[in-house]
Amino acid sequence: MLGDPWTLVVLRDVVFGGRRHFRELLAQSEEGIASNVLASRLKALVAAGLLTRDDARRGQRARYSLTEAGIQTLPVLVALGAWGRAHLATTPLLAARQRAMEDGGPAFVEGLMNELREAHLGVPRPDPGAPRPSDALRAAYEAAR
Amino acid sequence: MLGDPWTLVVLRDVVFGGRRHFRELLAQSEEGIASNVLASRLKALVAAGLLTRDDARRGQRARYSLTEAGIQTLPVLVALGAWGRAHLATTPLLAARQRAMEDGGPAFVEGLMNELREAHLGVPRPDPGAPRPSDALRAAYEAAR
Repeated sequence: MLGDPWTLVVLRDVVFGGRRHFRELLAQSEEGIASNVLASRLKALVAAGLLTRDDARRGQRARYSLTEAGIQTLPVLVALGAWGRAHLATTPLLAARQRAMEDGGPAFVEGLMNELREAHLGVPRPDPGAPRPSDALRAAYEAAR
Repeated sequence: MLGDPWTLVVLRDVVFGGRRHFRELLAQSEEGIASNVLASRLKALVAAGLLTRDDARRGQRARYSLTEAGIQTLPVLVALGAWGRAHLATTPLLAARQRAMEDGGPAFVEGLMNELREAHLGVPRPDPGAPRPSDALRAAYEAAR
């Protein structure tokens, strides 16, 4: 309802799945996204300034990075996920991760954004010794398996 | 990017504008929504379970009400608005209202949802003596005029 579903799915897979290359976004897609749909949505996300596409060198694959504006969609994705968990059918695995984010509150989401800034923009985390929120998400996901 | 723009615009006008009838949603639309677009988006919101349409009695206009699921889109709208205020062109009036919601935090948003439950579902506010968040939004809007 509240979005172009495929654009959100691609953004989600980059943000939460850590997928940066076309091939892994395609092969690991839980929804089985089609190749041409993935290509068009990646282009749209780059055009909107949420992703950048690093020029591939010879023999290398192009890699996508979140921009600061892309990273700041995280609270929107979390709010959408909370709505979905309350009102739509979901899977126990995805619900477990979503619940962990909701329970963690704004500080948890801010910590996740700092992890994304490190991975995508090369900005060190302000609290390098602190536990990584992504570890807590992975643990919640594994516990629900 | 993150949504069908017109559906979000209609939902926003019901949530924040208190508009419940087709005619006022059409006439007061800041974006000048077309009549057929408004009609299709209202139908889609009803089909998705975010709005109900009260049967009009003879000589009366049909009225739209938010459902509980519709009311719970508020945190998504606030998160989207925060993203928009940071990354898109906006107007001082809308920005003032958005900033007031962000400054108020989750308790403020919960208070707004309680006001919507009263207006749309007939559920009394749990704190009838407390100030109305909508008054604070109106004041922020007026102060920016």
